[in-house]
Amino acid sequence: MTLNETHDPALRSWVASANGHDTDFPIQNLPFAVFRRTGSSEAWRGGVAIGDQVLDLGTAARTGAITGAAAQALQAAAGDSLNAFMALGAPAWSALRLALSRALREGAAERTRLEPCLVAQDAVEYTVPARIGDYTDFYTSIHHATNIGRLFRPDNPLMPNYKWIPIGYHGRASSVVVSGQDFRRPVGQTRAPDAGAPVVQASQRMDIELELGVFIGSANALGEPVTMAQAETHVFGLTLLNDWSARDIQPWEYQPLGPFLSKNFATTISPWIVTLEALAPYRVAPPARAADDPAPLAYLDSSFNREQGAIDIELDVLVQTPRMREQGQEAARIVTTNYRHAYWSFAQMVAHHTVNGCNLQPGDLLGTGTLSGPSLDQAAALIELTAGGKNPLTLPNGETRTWLQDGDTVVLRGHCAREGAARIGFGECRGTVLPARAL
Amino acid sequence: MTLNETHDPALRSWVASANGHDTDFPIQNLPFAVFRRTGSSEAWRGGVAIGDQVLDLGTAARTGAITGAAAQALQAAAGDSLNAFMALGAPAWSALRLALSRALREGAAERTRLEPCLVAQDAVEYTVPARIGDYTDFYTSIHHATNIGRLFRPDNPLMPNYKWIPIGYHGRASSVVVSGQDFRRPVGQTRAPDAGAPVVQASQRMDIELELGVFIGSANALGEPVTMAQAETHVFGLTLLNDWSARDIQPWEYQPLGPFLSKNFATTISPWIVTLEALAPYRVAPPARAADDPAPLAYLDSSFNREQGAIDIELDVLVQTPRMREQGQEAARIVTTNYRHAYWSFAQMVAHHTVNGCNLQPGDLLGTGTLSGPSLDQAAALIELTAGGKNPLTLPNGETRTWLQDGDTVVLRGHCAREGAARIGFGECRGTVLPARAL
Repeated sequence: MTLNETHDPALRSWVASANGHDTDFPIQNLPFAVFRRTGSSEAWRGGVAIGDQVLDLGTAARTGAITGAAAQALQAAAGDSLNAFMALGAPAWSALRLALSRALREGAAERTRLEPCLVAQDAVEYTVPARIGDYTDFYTSIHHATNIGRLFRPDNPLMPNYKWIPIGYHGRASSVVVSGQDFRRPVGQTRAPDAGAPVVQASQRMDIELELGVFIGSANALGEPVTMAQAETHVFGLTLLNDWSARDIQPWEYQPLGPFLSKNFATTISPWIVTLEALAPYRVAPPARAADDPAPLAYLDSSFNREQGAIDIELDVLVQTPRMREQGQEAARIVTTNYRHAYWSFAQMVAHHTVNGCNLQPGDLLGTGTLSGPSLDQAAALIELTAGGKNPLTLPNGETRTWLQDGDTVVLRGHCAREGAARIGFGECRGTVLPARAL
Repeated sequence: MTLNETHDPALRSWVASANGHDTDFPIQNLPFAVFRRTGSSEAWRGGVAIGDQVLDLGTAARTGAITGAAAQALQAAAGDSLNAFMALGAPAWSALRLALSRALREGAAERTRLEPCLVAQDAVEYTVPARIGDYTDFYTSIHHATNIGRLFRPDNPLMPNYKWIPIGYHGRASSVVVSGQDFRRPVGQTRAPDAGAPVVQASQRMDIELELGVFIGSANALGEPVTMAQAETHVFGLTLLNDWSARDIQPWEYQPLGPFLSKNFATTISPWIVTLEALAPYRVAPPARAADDPAPLAYLDSSFNREQGAIDIELDVLVQTPRMREQGQEAARIVTTNYRHAYWSFAQMVAHHTVNGCNLQPGDLLGTGTLSGPSLDQAAALIELTAGGKNPLTLPNGETRTWLQDGDTVVLRGHCAREGAARIGFGECRGTVLPARAL
């Protein structure tokens, strides 16, 4: 991933809202989503964010404003899911990004044809941007693994495999929903540690997990692993991801095969996929391993990319309670963390996932796992922030929360910013916990 | 599921090979697959097995031989996957089955139009019969869970949740392959119990797991559980399933989130989906629970269906080594077991999977887990048969196996048979372990 003209922080767009300092979507970003006008029965189609607008790729393709290699990519990205575009591979993604960057710049001749293709983001709704064939969730924050482990094994919080294996497990693709789609509090079996029989009830310990979602672009064939050197070329881009978790269902069900119903009732992602190329200015070295940490095994070795193995993405969790909503108060931030702290990189996730020959396909989604930072106030799940439910959080309006209550809205946000580079934002990932169904 | 005219054991087909006593595919069966002529570039299309033939549903639909409600179902089943047919629901499946049963009977007027639609099974190849959105694997044999648990916890083999929860976890959909598609021995991390660092190598403990695959037909909406009373109407039918497992990768990776790379390199299913309706004559009571076993919780309660909660399906595992193949010896049976021993039924799998609102979709695949029977010679995985690799099996030609060697072919078979009912077979589920890629 090298910097090119699309990253120039001096670039300005003829879409005025893209030139503000605090927009998530300047011309240096150009993330992809699938959208239609809110409440319409229009076809879903691909779109690119620019300022407070969506460039409709369906109508843009029909204008003929984009030509050459990028035109084929544009056609693929105009469909009702991004899978076909993803399958074209990194050169096609890059070609379309460059063509759109040029066509959206101040003074571009394409303005006349593309301006009618803009739709206000306020007026659209989104769907999951790809048909997700498989969803895998990882566990790449050593701080999260340690915080969780400490609740169960205070003297020995980290499993012996943690520093050798980017631990992952398969999740549920069918219940991945897009930001704004609310879901019911799940019902399930739970058993108190000292109880005899389990009970079936609505979860009393609803939690969030702030993660990033990694969308696979290029496939690998069954039986053919992806090397570390190749891994990033298989990644299309990143979204925000909330891995909602029922902490009372999880401990009773998860032995010996892992979490299941405690997780698969809903997973929310943000609509916009921010491409790896847009994130290039924010690549940083991964966190230094401790002196007694083992070196990664050869198939996970990222030493060739030590300066750019991670990404500096600031991530926030905000909560808005029903009372805050009634009183017109915005969602309040409860945590800020950063993706740069992850022990395992997304390239290592891909290399590990495929070392046995497992095939990844365009549109597959990998979660990073909860991205807790090194200090406890950077913990990205309530189970960590409240020490397993013992220490409630106090919100700015004086309300307290140990776990989520019905009607609570959780908003995830993420952005990259630094001197000398354009701000790259992720938009938001929003979901509200609805009351459980009647039992 | 009640018996109807399609189950009459006296029915005979104008396809002569369907009338033999040992065919898997008499006119009372009529399972579905997706096929094309071997080595051709024809379109994949739905087919129904009848004797040693496949009725090509694509050409059959064009003959107009099937009319009425069944014609729409036939059209849906003629596509390149069965998802659209599955989504039509149980009344449509039943209507097509009845129409095909009548059209294939001795003396049927449709013979003239349908006979040209037959293709010899010897001349076709199959693909996975549905786009599998999500694959979930369960653990429904208490005998398997106990045998495995005993290897790790001799005094307390069964987890405390086992008799309350039909334990399941998410598997990998992309690497589900159809019978006959061979796969490479996986490479992965493993660590001997007394070793310091793990090593990366080809698995040395390749195992099989004999299971049944349960294809979901009708969807449930996100947030809407499926009750026990409704569960079977959501199930389209059953296949054989081999959950290949790398027993040296599994113990090192699976804490705390469950098996991952030890399983997701390949899962093989048989091409033919045997419908629940075809299996109706073989419904039996589930095994009696022990006096001290808890009664199922209300959402898993199958007492309304106590006489027909299980299915009497005899299941076999056969192995053919390279030496046997060279010497012209058939695969040798190493185990026979029966699905009727499962502690949790497939209806309970569906009810549990959805109790939290998780949405199942047409084409989703659920594995039953390894179907070991009550005695150790009915154990359906090598890890059980060899007591964790300690006691090798001796094959009829004198060769021994603890784990699978390169070139070994494993064949699963299944059938139902009893006095007064037609034999219902599953065909076979076959796979060969190819050498690992070079490291």
